[in-house]
Amino acid sequence: MRVVAIQLSTDELQAQVRRALAEDLGWGDVTTQALVDPTVQARGVVAFREAGVVAGLPVAAAVFAVLDPAVRWQSHHADGDAVATGTSVAEISGPAASLLTGERLALNYLQRLSGIATLTARYVQELEGTGARLVDTRKTTPGLRSLEKYAVRCGGGSNHRHGLSDGVLVKDNHIAILGRQGVSLQAAVARARAAAPHGLRVEVEVDRLDQIEDVIAGGADIVLLDNMPAPVLAEAVRLVAGRALTEASGGITLANARACAEAGVDLISVGALTHSARALDIGLDFE
Amino acid sequence: MRVVAIQLSTDELQAQVRRALAEDLGWGDVTTQALVDPTVQARGVVAFREAGVVAGLPVAAAVFAVLDPAVRWQSHHADGDAVATGTSVAEISGPAASLLTGERLALNYLQRLSGIATLTARYVQELEGTGARLVDTRKTTPGLRSLEKYAVRCGGGSNHRHGLSDGVLVKDNHIAILGRQGVSLQAAVARARAAAPHGLRVEVEVDRLDQIEDVIAGGADIVLLDNMPAPVLAEAVRLVAGRALTEASGGITLANARACAEAGVDLISVGALTHSARALDIGLDFE
Amino acid sequence: MRVVAIQLSTDELQAQVRRALAEDLGWGDVTTQALVDPTVQARGVVAFREAGVVAGLPVAAAVFAVLDPAVRWQSHHADGDAVATGTSVAEISGPAASLLTGERLALNYLQRLSGIATLTARYVQELEGTGARLVDTRKTTPGLRSLEKYAVRCGGGSNHRHGLSDGVLVKDNHIAILGRQGVSLQAAVARARAAAPHGLRVEVEVDRLDQIEDVIAGGADIVLLDNMPAPVLAEAVRLVAGRALTEASGGITLANARACAEAGVDLISVGALTHSARALDIGLDFE
Amino acid sequence: MRVVAIQLSTDELQAQVRRALAEDLGWGDVTTQALVDPTVQARGVVAFREAGVVAGLPVAAAVFAVLDPAVRWQSHHADGDAVATGTSVAEISGPAASLLTGERLALNYLQRLSGIATLTARYVQELEGTGARLVDTRKTTPGLRSLEKYAVRCGGGSNHRHGLSDGVLVKDNHIAILGRQGVSLQAAVARARAAAPHGLRVEVEVDRLDQIEDVIAGGADIVLLDNMPAPVLAEAVRLVAGRALTEASGGITLANARACAEAGVDLISVGALTHSARALDIGLDFE
Amino acid sequence: MRVVAIQLSTDELQAQVRRALAEDLGWGDVTTQALVDPTVQARGVVAFREAGVVAGLPVAAAVFAVLDPAVRWQSHHADGDAVATGTSVAEISGPAASLLTGERLALNYLQRLSGIATLTARYVQELEGTGARLVDTRKTTPGLRSLEKYAVRCGGGSNHRHGLSDGVLVKDNHIAILGRQGVSLQAAVARARAAAPHGLRVEVEVDRLDQIEDVIAGGADIVLLDNMPAPVLAEAVRLVAGRALTEASGGITLANARACAEAGVDLISVGALTHSARALDIGLDFE
Amino acid sequence: MRVVAIQLSTDELQAQVRRALAEDLGWGDVTTQALVDPTVQARGVVAFREAGVVAGLPVAAAVFAVLDPAVRWQSHHADGDAVATGTSVAEISGPAASLLTGERLALNYLQRLSGIATLTARYVQELEGTGARLVDTRKTTPGLRSLEKYAVRCGGGSNHRHGLSDGVLVKDNHIAILGRQGVSLQAAVARARAAAPHGLRVEVEVDRLDQIEDVIAGGADIVLLDNMPAPVLAEAVRLVAGRALTEASGGITLANARACAEAGVDLISVGALTHSARALDIGLDFE
Repeated sequence: MRVVAIQLSTDELQAQVRRALAEDLGWGDVTTQALVDPTVQARGVVAFREAGVVAGLPVAAAVFAVLDPAVRWQSHHADGDAVATGTSVAEISGPAASLLTGERLALNYLQRLSGIATLTARYVQELEGTGARLVDTRKTTPGLRSLEKYAVRCGGGSNHRHGLSDGVLVKDNHIAILGRQGVSLQAAVARARAAAPHGLRVEVEVDRLDQIEDVIAGGADIVLLDNMPAPVLAEAVRLVAGRALTEASGGITLANARACAEAGVDLISVGALTHSARALDIGLDFE
Repeated sequence: MRVVAIQLSTDELQAQVRRALAEDLGWGDVTTQALVDPTVQARGVVAFREAGVVAGLPVAAAVFAVLDPAVRWQSHHADGDAVATGTSVAEISGPAASLLTGERLALNYLQRLSGIATLTARYVQELEGTGARLVDTRKTTPGLRSLEKYAVRCGGGSNHRHGLSDGVLVKDNHIAILGRQGVSLQAAVARARAAAPHGLRVEVEVDRLDQIEDVIAGGADIVLLDNMPAPVLAEAVRLVAGRALTEASGGITLANARACAEAGVDLISVGALTHSARALDIGLDFE
Repeated sequence: MRVVAIQLSTDELQAQVRRALAEDLGWGDVTTQALVDPTVQARGVVAFREAGVVAGLPVAAAVFAVLDPAVRWQSHHADGDAVATGTSVAEISGPAASLLTGERLALNYLQRLSGIATLTARYVQELEGTGARLVDTRKTTPGLRSLEKYAVRCGGGSNHRHGLSDGVLVKDNHIAILGRQGVSLQAAVARARAAAPHGLRVEVEVDRLDQIEDVIAGGADIVLLDNMPAPVLAEAVRLVAGRALTEASGGITLANARACAEAGVDLISVGALTHSARALDIGLDFE
Repeated sequence: MRVVAIQLSTDELQAQVRRALAEDLGWGDVTTQALVDPTVQARGVVAFREAGVVAGLPVAAAVFAVLDPAVRWQSHHADGDAVATGTSVAEISGPAASLLTGERLALNYLQRLSGIATLTARYVQELEGTGARLVDTRKTTPGLRSLEKYAVRCGGGSNHRHGLSDGVLVKDNHIAILGRQGVSLQAAVARARAAAPHGLRVEVEVDRLDQIEDVIAGGADIVLLDNMPAPVLAEAVRLVAGRALTEASGGITLANARACAEAGVDLISVGALTHSARALDIGLDFE
Repeated sequence: MRVVAIQLSTDELQAQVRRALAEDLGWGDVTTQALVDPTVQARGVVAFREAGVVAGLPVAAAVFAVLDPAVRWQSHHADGDAVATGTSVAEISGPAASLLTGERLALNYLQRLSGIATLTARYVQELEGTGARLVDTRKTTPGLRSLEKYAVRCGGGSNHRHGLSDGVLVKDNHIAILGRQGVSLQAAVARARAAAPHGLRVEVEVDRLDQIEDVIAGGADIVLLDNMPAPVLAEAVRLVAGRALTEASGGITLANARACAEAGVDLISVGALTHSARALDIGLDFE
Repeated sequence: MRVVAIQLSTDELQAQVRRALAEDLGWGDVTTQALVDPTVQARGVVAFREAGVVAGLPVAAAVFAVLDPAVRWQSHHADGDAVATGTSVAEISGPAASLLTGERLALNYLQRLSGIATLTARYVQELEGTGARLVDTRKTTPGLRSLEKYAVRCGGGSNHRHGLSDGVLVKDNHIAILGRQGVSLQAAVARARAAAPHGLRVEVEVDRLDQIEDVIAGGADIVLLDNMPAPVLAEAVRLVAGRALTEASGGITLANARACAEAGVDLISVGALTHSARALDIGLDFE
């Protein structure tokens, strides 16, 4: 079984969950406090109401751990598992009041992260057998980047750089600004190579085939091919000729992803994985 | 012009944006630092690449305000405006390095919030002329509730309770747990009424018509009609007979929203507004 | 035995206690560090030096839990219990140094919260047998609202809204400002009803009997009768005639509370419960 | 005019006020948002409804500064001023909505701090002409120590140590614990003197006259005389004979404070200044 | 065995370590995640590669406690022990990935703190047999004061005041500013004595012998003798004549420390203990 | 003039300075409060008492900006400038009390950072004319990494990876753990290359020449040569033969740095830059 590691320490995960709980709880759950005696116990299962790839179980578990240490959470599946409609992925028991209070937030995390993992898995399936690797982008929900990139890994994808400090990516707007100052594309790339930390590769975005030779000459390690249809991508790959990695980006959908991959690129990045995945339908059923 | 008020103080908005910036920036923007001299100035416009309802301009402005006070942001539109493809909604100028560093986060906010506002506006349009009011749910992205509920208002919708402390909502799981202890539905509702803060109305979820009389007898102010097709909703409204407000919830789509509204309910709540809106396509074009 | 639930999670309580400890400890307890060997153990009891209602035991326990996990706290009573002079409400044992360092803060919480609970209980006793419910106000100590409202519940009182977001209360100053713009009282109330979240009741303050008909016509659910002597309250209750709840507020003392209640109001709110209760005399006696 | 300095930086004061505002505001002021247009301006005065000593004006000003920079606050008096009933101590103007939202918190601070300052001033008046200095204790409200000690200074009192790290005070419980280990009182005091930071004086609590010679012999700089009536205090002062400062503490009231002072002690400490002062009646009147 | 108490609660220590871990970890340890399976266990020892005094073991232990509760840390020595080259001071075992991730930060703390303790011990050894006590200064690394002052104690030194609020120290710049306003040195010292908290001693810096009589007359408890060679110190001690404590400060090195002490001063303060100690060479060896 | 950019936003810098100020200030500067009237103004200069490279001026300025916005700071030099003994690098004016209170912390930052920059500059000078670039390590003071790495740049050095997430560095301990599981060195490097983010280069530590061929075969981009004398380094460079970058690390001193560089390595990393630089002597002189 493939194991996907969540890259947040218990500490960081709990800090994140704590803020989200505060947002939902305000000064207390007035309904549950009015109705449910603190000593009443209950048990429930987390059920997938549609098929998909599981992501977020440790996050949902953390919601209850932060809310009430008396709640017991037991996962029946692991993040990254593909499950059928009706599958119970976890069981939860403890004070009924705490289960009722934490339910919505736990599900909000699970539904969003499983939605991302499920969409990712469909893209990964499309690419199967081609040499291309599916990666995400920085188009994530503000505040949830680590979790959303984790969900992408749960779906079988890989992560692009986490943020601005762990990858060099020279984009069209960088080039435009340098161009206005009379710096050529090749010179811009060379400057990035010289000034950037020596442990980072240099990736450069191009939107025309005639830019490729310049960025290679400047020392690019990776060429990002922006918004090119599959035949153009194939031509780009031919021009790069193994001198750098190639990444297709922009306008990639489930419909054209395989064609792009078959054009020979090394990487395919898809922003929709994180910015437009719909939530999966998941519920908490009390026994 | 309709004005939508953002319910976050400058202080809270900046705190939120600060956390999101830290997430993206890590210890610094290595690409921009390698390439762009801090004294170079630039100017750009925020352009809608598809039609939609604007939401998030003050948030995007706050991103740059936190990042670098030398950046000037000028909105050409207000949140809540419906704009056509190609519209420039704001202009931004200042140190090129800061514009490049803040661009992605500012767009991430704008794309998500405008996506929510745009989807909301389509539902609102469906309901036009019926007496029903469109409301959101607590199915928001953890950490972004205030902003997402603001985006719903930008789209012309109304907000349901913000969280667990500012509204009483007795749900199926509450009723199930009380039922197991021998508390009848009517008694449960009466208990909620007696124990809840006197300033809050009591809303109760029902999924069968025969529960309506009990919840009214228990003192419910609002009846949430869960997952009922339009004809059943109409019957429910007839049974409630003005003794409480009625809210349709569950399974509402753009296809059936108008029919539900025409069944006579007062409120229609749609979780998809916040959990499954896709991001709008918005970019930052440098001059 | 009546159980009063504290509406702060362990997490929030510890965060609050942590800030208060930092305030008292600074960089360390120089006296205890100079005198007491860390291995010396001690035992003590928390003793009420005057009769009163207990409130704050879990808070005092949290002080020691945050300070030193090796300290053991055992409560002999529960918050909400009325105890006689000399009662030992809890026993504490562990490293003597930690007991000495945490003593003052633990007592500061207990003395203030028990003071509030005790004063509340005296008001509740005054109202016994009348239909009126005693409630608190927002006149709490900045930073301690949840704990002080909890102490009111320990004393047998109920809570008014927690803050500005979980209750609609149209006050004299709102009305004055709208009046200056030509908005009538009835129109103001109607505007509040239309714009406020549908799950909240609308409460409106009046200080003259002739305002009552207007606020009822505007749709008020609760009428706050400000600073009226008992006979005027009785007349107000007669005028409202069951069309809304009534709340007496302003100028209520132990001397006149019962008369106000007998005027027939549903609620009596007293700011002094939280802003002017004196601390109870409670000590920690080492064995 | 005497000037009292607030020992919190703007930064710390705003952080404190920010937490208190969050506590009151929750996710927003639903009443004001429903009723008052953001563009409406208003003006009001902060009026003392009873005579007293002013304390807390910069704190109240900070509430509005944090809430909305568009609000203008102008103090007519300074903290430390004694004012008559009906005095307007400050004027405030700006967006009506912000004035309404911040009013309660600003008054909560002012009422509590002015209550402390007023009570302190009454004690100071009692001691006038004697050589004794009035000081506070660590019996402050958790979270408000700096502000409450500031209010004591506004009332003309002095501050005892701020917390556990800036003063050595050997109390009965320290002595009891050391006694159980066979350490004599004199040896305990000598140990404190040897081990405590060289910049701090050593103060020791005694509750019997026969302990005085021991604590002096041990090297005490200050002798705290606990719960002694005036004649016993006089005898204690005679025994100390100028070899240390003397502080009377415990059981001091407005009725016996002067007699205690006339017994010749250097300092008189009163816990009630901060733990049992009642709030002063102060309001915000809109024009 | 001498026991040195760390004056940070577990809570504060973990908060400090948490911030430092976040600084090193960023969004995750990419090397270890790429290479080491989370289930692999390992064991290692913390070895001193040069002789020195141990300081920081509880801090290093806290690094792993915060990072991963599954790591077991066992100290073989206590802080304050002098150990020889090659000594293993602690053993650590648990998930290999966590050991690899936390190694650097744990060593960074240990190397710096042990470096300070080792340098301190050399000074203490120089002073042995004289009556002078070695103390540190406020010249510590921003953010690490409590830990660095703890390291000084581990090395056998004592602490001067922790910060600005727990000690009165009138320095040359204070005197200069008052002098410009016409306040004499003696008057300045007297003002400090009158206005400072009664629990604090007053220390005054002098750089000329002719100032001594004035500061004693003003009421100084401690005289700081700034930058004086040993013979001048001896003369100063003679002039003070036991009427105050004396502290030598400024320009003290290992070469002249003993001579300064033999001049008869009570205290010798050395800023280099914390601002210029070099890191000790300490490593983590995996078995 | 070379400009060195500080990679902390104003926001982050102020947050860092705020924590450090709180550490020093505690609840207030008792000496200054006792002595200096808040209205007294003063002026002073920051003077280098020994020659060195300036680093930390914006940090020192931030100390006063956070403490008191009324203080004016004007730099006469820029970070990165080499200055002679006696140079005044900045002028400061404003309320005397604030200058006195902030002086020590401002100098603590300046002295440490300028100490690092000065030591770095000496190494850089040693390497002049060789092709080798001087880089720092992760052996920084916990909590000060960004500032200390900035100081290295001020001294003319370059930065190695900032932390664990922005560079792949396979160290001896990684290799040891994988070795115990039967993974060869070449396989370990290949695994790192496959699993690490595609934007990062892979650096691998070797301590024997016979490991070089394996790590190159595994796909290393950079070879870290640990603790090798210059002649061995030269042989290593010959073996690598341009197929990867080379970095000398471990045991590098001012005495042997040039010889190492002349061996032909691309990078030389020195931990002592940050862990053992002594503080520079810098003072604040009041006029």
